[in-house]
Amino acid sequence: MMIVVMKVGVTTKEISNVITRVKTLGYEAHLSEGEQRTIIGVVGDGDIRQYREQFELMEGVERTVPVSHPYKLASREFRPSNSLVPLNGTKVGEKKIVVIAGPCSVESREQIIETAHAVKEAGATALRGGAFKPRTSPYSFQGLGEEGLKYLAEAREQTGLPIVTEVMEPAMVSLVCDYADVLQIGARNMQNYALLHAVGKAQHTVLLKRGMSSTIEELLMAAEYILSHGNTRVMLCERGIRTFEPYTRNTFDINAVPVLKQRTHLPVVADPSHATGHWEYVEAAARAAVAAGADGLIIEVHPKPEEAVSDGKQSLTPERFANLMKAIKRVAEAVDRTA
Amino acid sequence: MMIVVMKVGVTTKEISNVITRVKTLGYEAHLSEGEQRTIIGVVGDGDIRQYREQFELMEGVERTVPVSHPYKLASREFRPSNSLVPLNGTKVGEKKIVVIAGPCSVESREQIIETAHAVKEAGATALRGGAFKPRTSPYSFQGLGEEGLKYLAEAREQTGLPIVTEVMEPAMVSLVCDYADVLQIGARNMQNYALLHAVGKAQHTVLLKRGMSSTIEELLMAAEYILSHGNTRVMLCERGIRTFEPYTRNTFDINAVPVLKQRTHLPVVADPSHATGHWEYVEAAARAAVAAGADGLIIEVHPKPEEAVSDGKQSLTPERFANLMKAIKRVAEAVDRTA
Amino acid sequence: MMIVVMKVGVTTKEISNVITRVKTLGYEAHLSEGEQRTIIGVVGDGDIRQYREQFELMEGVERTVPVSHPYKLASREFRPSNSLVPLNGTKVGEKKIVVIAGPCSVESREQIIETAHAVKEAGATALRGGAFKPRTSPYSFQGLGEEGLKYLAEAREQTGLPIVTEVMEPAMVSLVCDYADVLQIGARNMQNYALLHAVGKAQHTVLLKRGMSSTIEELLMAAEYILSHGNTRVMLCERGIRTFEPYTRNTFDINAVPVLKQRTHLPVVADPSHATGHWEYVEAAARAAVAAGADGLIIEVHPKPEEAVSDGKQSLTPERFANLMKAIKRVAEAVDRTA
Amino acid sequence: MMIVVMKVGVTTKEISNVITRVKTLGYEAHLSEGEQRTIIGVVGDGDIRQYREQFELMEGVERTVPVSHPYKLASREFRPSNSLVPLNGTKVGEKKIVVIAGPCSVESREQIIETAHAVKEAGATALRGGAFKPRTSPYSFQGLGEEGLKYLAEAREQTGLPIVTEVMEPAMVSLVCDYADVLQIGARNMQNYALLHAVGKAQHTVLLKRGMSSTIEELLMAAEYILSHGNTRVMLCERGIRTFEPYTRNTFDINAVPVLKQRTHLPVVADPSHATGHWEYVEAAARAAVAAGADGLIIEVHPKPEEAVSDGKQSLTPERFANLMKAIKRVAEAVDRTA
Repeated sequence: MMIVVMKVGVTTKEISNVITRVKTLGYEAHLSEGEQRTIIGVVGDGDIRQYREQFELMEGVERTVPVSHPYKLASREFRPSNSLVPLNGTKVGEKKIVVIAGPCSVESREQIIETAHAVKEAGATALRGGAFKPRTSPYSFQGLGEEGLKYLAEAREQTGLPIVTEVMEPAMVSLVCDYADVLQIGARNMQNYALLHAVGKAQHTVLLKRGMSSTIEELLMAAEYILSHGNTRVMLCERGIRTFEPYTRNTFDINAVPVLKQRTHLPVVADPSHATGHWEYVEAAARAAVAAGADGLIIEVHPKPEEAVSDGKQSLTPERFANLMKAIKRVAEAVDRTA
Repeated sequence: MMIVVMKVGVTTKEISNVITRVKTLGYEAHLSEGEQRTIIGVVGDGDIRQYREQFELMEGVERTVPVSHPYKLASREFRPSNSLVPLNGTKVGEKKIVVIAGPCSVESREQIIETAHAVKEAGATALRGGAFKPRTSPYSFQGLGEEGLKYLAEAREQTGLPIVTEVMEPAMVSLVCDYADVLQIGARNMQNYALLHAVGKAQHTVLLKRGMSSTIEELLMAAEYILSHGNTRVMLCERGIRTFEPYTRNTFDINAVPVLKQRTHLPVVADPSHATGHWEYVEAAARAAVAAGADGLIIEVHPKPEEAVSDGKQSLTPERFANLMKAIKRVAEAVDRTA
Repeated sequence: MMIVVMKVGVTTKEISNVITRVKTLGYEAHLSEGEQRTIIGVVGDGDIRQYREQFELMEGVERTVPVSHPYKLASREFRPSNSLVPLNGTKVGEKKIVVIAGPCSVESREQIIETAHAVKEAGATALRGGAFKPRTSPYSFQGLGEEGLKYLAEAREQTGLPIVTEVMEPAMVSLVCDYADVLQIGARNMQNYALLHAVGKAQHTVLLKRGMSSTIEELLMAAEYILSHGNTRVMLCERGIRTFEPYTRNTFDINAVPVLKQRTHLPVVADPSHATGHWEYVEAAARAAVAAGADGLIIEVHPKPEEAVSDGKQSLTPERFANLMKAIKRVAEAVDRTA
Repeated sequence: MMIVVMKVGVTTKEISNVITRVKTLGYEAHLSEGEQRTIIGVVGDGDIRQYREQFELMEGVERTVPVSHPYKLASREFRPSNSLVPLNGTKVGEKKIVVIAGPCSVESREQIIETAHAVKEAGATALRGGAFKPRTSPYSFQGLGEEGLKYLAEAREQTGLPIVTEVMEPAMVSLVCDYADVLQIGARNMQNYALLHAVGKAQHTVLLKRGMSSTIEELLMAAEYILSHGNTRVMLCERGIRTFEPYTRNTFDINAVPVLKQRTHLPVVADPSHATGHWEYVEAAARAAVAAGADGLIIEVHPKPEEAVSDGKQSLTPERFANLMKAIKRVAEAVDRTA
């Protein structure tokens, strides 16, 4: 596999010449036209690398990048420097560690607005809250739907915090884009390819959660679906994986943080709430994530965790969240970051 | 949790009376109106069972079913006798073990028609073949789409074999229904709730595959989504789970067969092709599935496995498939079944 | 890696010549002197295969076998035909499927003798029962020790059934050998190398259980430890692996049966009692194991499961065990075996 | 379950009175006589807690401790304050984070002495190095044995660093105690109960590694075996668990750190070398462990990782180790610790 990176300002003719050459050699060409840059993925059996020089001599070609793993656009080889994702005046992937906080579900106008003010005061960068909830049981609360989105928008208006909220199906992408600053793809939908294509096309910022039993490579391949639409504003999220250990809801794969930072240019966010499943362990896991190099955190906060309709056990009170913010600021500094 | 099963011919008034009573007691009521039957799920904390008699005395109520697990309509408690799913003149869940066979992907008209004739001759009950393929990589072959569906329909016309094919997104359910006899929900989509709702509403026969890291309970809950639309023609499929063992593609959870047969009335189909990932082990795994009590098998067969665009390693040649059919007939008889 | 197989009747001089040659070439030589055969394992970096002809021309060398996986003596490449392990007048690995049955723990003289008679009558080949029990808790019943071994010996005297019982530490191997026909290495001790060496040296028949999270390759490597002492009477046992599925105690890796039969000449025994953990599923799992090609079964039977000090939930009553024997006889015949 | 803690200086008569009372109530009594303290575990069905007052009124009884989990002596309920384990003038479990460093295997006198000086200079608290190596293959290097222990002792003499080294079988405990300051129980031997009893009896400091697929509860139960001999100098070690993720050797269960700190009074050490398997990720994982609350680290350092006979891929050079020490000092301060 190889990537042909085209020059800025490449012409349609130059692109089609490269594609023709790829096909003539018996390979498939995958065109990805991003905002600033067009790249052509060359896929097929046989050693394409022998033709690198030929391609690099063609009009409009900047360089070629051989890739030894199945993800291309997501790889550090393709883009050595960090991709920076704008969020609330900062850029995720730079020095500042962003913190996205809020309840699992939007339950009422009061609940989300109260929480938004509380997390803002403690220093959060963005507000999370689910309006459409993927639930194991069809009999569980499925979210407030568009009403929830409206409450989120009102919370944003009052606090200035951008909104991160989940979208569960292609048909809803447009609606959710109308309200949300960041579209969250949940763990259960990490390989929902129709949805990945839809959010890729939407050119909206995406927070892509790792599937609960997905490998790191599968996460990068899922990102590749979104990136292949030229949408590079993608944050990856490690949220714990399924193992045999029953004392915690999931096993927080902390290794995934340095592994992802090494292999991809995309920012890495950690979710210590889902990764542990118990509020008592959230702060320790959050500190660990920052120490390991995460670019951001997403944390569940609820004014009254004991009354939450979902995930109460893993939700912090606003007070505990404020303490967590203080704790991670100190760890952030110890690794030359800020929070 | 408890289910209130309403009588056939129940009135709207009777239904709303039950719902009011449920709410008065502090519980949530979930109304599911199927084709023949209306049921009301009663959910909440506390022992709802103490009110069983009260409900059973209300107008329009046939019976109540207490359930100790989160799935209700899928449970043996709710329906003690096997649900039978019509397929090609037989009923899945009865004595005859059905065998669904065919290639992973529909690759060409010739390939699917040749395979259809071959598997029919060997005794298959239905033809499988993917027209829309969920692939880890956006650069892999994604299926022929509607063209593939047309080839499948032609193969059905020639052989009489009903078609089992995957649907990957809600927007495609209607199209796939136009061609397919059975809608397959793939492992990656087991918790794609929008899709589960869509196939539930379609009132079409469904083959629901277990997610690669889903528990048996989560599989039953996914089925519950479909059943909640009154669509009871659902076959469950054990296709191997993800573990640490690298010698096989997946670990075939053979225990799931007797566990499912005990807990649910829905038929259970096993997929020894995905469960092993190597054609050499497929026959042994198929024999094991039948011996363990499976109601059906779904098996990948390709005229030239070495040229298959996907899953070649786990595909049987038509000759090996014919041998497998003979082998499982013998095992079927040893457990008082036929094949 | 390569194996040099010496001729029957090879001399010490011929052996040392080969070893010298191996070392001169910069490799390590591992001498394994079995009862009938001496082999020399050649291990090291670099391509040893280039010297195959040189070795095959040396005095005393019968042939050389290149090996691409880390196990050698356990591999089918080293010994293409099944190793047969004598047990109670039959040979495990031949046509007859052996059934080893009995309680988890020897609890009393009466209990083990009653069980021995019951399982013999139903057709068991051997009696199992633990006198030394590995328990997760130091506060749980640890077994009757030598007293238990004496009761087992008495049960053998009365019924003629050979005894399969666990040995947990090197210092006990000699004692357990005095009573037992087959030494069981439990799942927790699969990589207790001192114990593997000790039972290897003892030249006693061994039943080696797969560790609860060990790969198939690790199981074969553990067998290699025993085989390296020239002790080839080793039966491998698949007893379920640890996964995320909570409805069963373990996940029965049925794939391991055909995988092992393909890769090793050693007989394969399945343990449906531990592999499921619930007596309701034991018969289905036992049928599956036989259908998949297992050479034997080991099954927990207790006269009063509800009073068992350990593993009561997964123990069959003698009546249920008699039914299981009938069921597996039928499946055995369907795969050209007997039971 | 309940523990009856007897007073210091309790008489045999008082103990037997308690045991008799336990049995009269229909429970089992498990006597553990440590060096300073005798405790009696009360096990059985039913609510033993109702008799707490009765027992506390008996002669010789100091107090009773009800326990809702199967481990008792290891629990925070039994001992609310941290157990402190002396090591090189500091106490593991107090403010200072200890770092145990050195090669996987002792390979030569020069190698271990060079490494000892290097890690000492960088600030290590103790020296690790294996003289007896548990290896998956019988053909791999098994360690230098007692020769290796002697080199370790010489390294201690030169540097003052105490020695942490593995013991693999009961028969070797006495020999290893002659040389080692801390006996390491490896992951494969976590449930080698004969070995746990042997190191418990030895009254030597123990570093107990979590089995690669053991739950946290099983780790605590293994510690319980050692503690039941009155040996409380036990450090627990999280070293990564086996999952489906192939990019790293193991999955570092960082959650285990706060979970263990909450549930047990024993110090918790993390092993980022095994937990990641690649030196590039070791520092990030080490920082995470300290941030999560670990009391110590054990890290593989080798003068020439590319020449190491084992674990070279995960070994740091002395230079990288020195950098790691600087990094973790900063993180330690951010969580009010020192290193």
